[in-house]
Amino acid sequence: MRVAKVSRGDRIGVAVRTGAGIKAVFGEATLSDLDALISSGTGLAKAAEAASGGEIVSEDDLTFLPPLVKAPKIICLGLNYKDHAAEGGFQVPEFPTIFARFSSSLIGHGAPIIKPPFSEQLDYEGELVAVIGKGGKNIAKDAALDHVAAYSVFNDGSVRDYQMKTPQWTAGKNFDDTGAFGPWLVTPDELPAGATGLKIETRLNGQTVQSASTSDMVFDVADTISLLSTFLTLEAGDVLVMGTPSGIGLARKPPLFMKDGDICEVEIEKVGLLVNPIKAA
Amino acid sequence: MRVAKVSRGDRIGVAVRTGAGIKAVFGEATLSDLDALISSGTGLAKAAEAASGGEIVSEDDLTFLPPLVKAPKIICLGLNYKDHAAEGGFQVPEFPTIFARFSSSLIGHGAPIIKPPFSEQLDYEGELVAVIGKGGKNIAKDAALDHVAAYSVFNDGSVRDYQMKTPQWTAGKNFDDTGAFGPWLVTPDELPAGATGLKIETRLNGQTVQSASTSDMVFDVADTISLLSTFLTLEAGDVLVMGTPSGIGLARKPPLFMKDGDICEVEIEKVGLLVNPIKAA
Repeated sequence: MRVAKVSRGDRIGVAVRTGAGIKAVFGEATLSDLDALISSGTGLAKAAEAASGGEIVSEDDLTFLPPLVKAPKIICLGLNYKDHAAEGGFQVPEFPTIFARFSSSLIGHGAPIIKPPFSEQLDYEGELVAVIGKGGKNIAKDAALDHVAAYSVFNDGSVRDYQMKTPQWTAGKNFDDTGAFGPWLVTPDELPAGATGLKIETRLNGQTVQSASTSDMVFDVADTISLLSTFLTLEAGDVLVMGTPSGIGLARKPPLFMKDGDICEVEIEKVGLLVNPIKAA
Repeated sequence: MRVAKVSRGDRIGVAVRTGAGIKAVFGEATLSDLDALISSGTGLAKAAEAASGGEIVSEDDLTFLPPLVKAPKIICLGLNYKDHAAEGGFQVPEFPTIFARFSSSLIGHGAPIIKPPFSEQLDYEGELVAVIGKGGKNIAKDAALDHVAAYSVFNDGSVRDYQMKTPQWTAGKNFDDTGAFGPWLVTPDELPAGATGLKIETRLNGQTVQSASTSDMVFDVADTISLLSTFLTLEAGDVLVMGTPSGIGLARKPPLFMKDGDICEVEIEKVGLLVNPIKAA
């Protein structure tokens, strides 16, 4: 299943990608509240089923919303690809390096990533998302993937001067309108176990700037769930943003930052294509 | 007003401290959901009014719950007292150093802070909390305090080896059962503007280990609201945990960590006294 939260005009809806194209239903608040469906353990099947019985819609008429906007936690991994840790001058971590994004920073597929007026260092980071469907503590690695409800795509837009202004990266990772998420939540049955072995690529104005395999992650999805759950309780609806490969703009010589009018795409094989224009505030 | 979320037996309630002692009502889900009251803009007055009309209760019969458990954001400030930045070998920051706590780590007044089995470095941090009552972006400093719904007390229990294991502190700040919050949400009219000039003290087994004034903060509540809102949207219900003064266990020679059977108290003049025993997992 590939499920998205969408709107058309002023009506919120839920869409599903089927062999016959995209189908959607609108105005069913319960079905389009993907946060509540996942948090309650109901899961995405009910929404997908309803959307499958809906009308065929044109992608051009849809606005894609961030699929989840009330995650109990959005946990982002830093330095989770060896080459990316190296390009930043960091050692490969022996434990997941985590920081938080807040939902206030999220936007959907197609929405503009906003370049703030007081920074010229807006950077891209293409990433895989894993959404927790079943919470837990002390989750064994070999059972960890049973806790995943869906995978998705993320652009962890980073304002580098604010990220580096203090010892903690949180500010630079939480500007409004910088965390692009979606378009689709893809259930695990559509993908290799743990979404491993998939090509992940970021393109800026059509030029490939990041290209790697999700198998290059230092801590894969199962590792991460297992390790995080040794000290914190994972909850249904939590979002894990799995880190970015090398090629970020900050590490380039000269640096390459995003500016008004750019188009940034993050594509993960079988998971989806997330496209966002860049717009000056 | 001083409002708390409490339980007695299996009933959740809301309590208010009055001249006649603590009064409470139980079983009114809407009134005891302080997250929803604050997020919706209703505020605490309705809960306080209902509790004032309730029964007088004995503090000994009450369990204090964390007053808020669904904050859109819990933003913690690091290095926000000069002497504390110095004891950790950090420079005083020129911009708020922020990291996140997740609600999964919260406990109430009286509940045990749990020492994990695999760390001997569980440390205390007494802190002031400011709860956002009215959200906004680009909030001017001179209007910032109008956005505060309440103040409270926090013990930002920190597992130091996990905090320092990677470049980001998030893991060590998010162990389950380490973030003690409460007991009371105190409305601004009960306190000096911005909760400045108040004595803040942490005691471990009766010995004073931190003692400062909330006026010693590098970024006070108004600064923090104004600066954070330059780049992110603050939302009603957001929790700001304002940083800790010097005296943490890690910086002592020899270090002083919390262990099973200890009692940790954080007291902020006029705001409240937060007491938690330490218990081994």
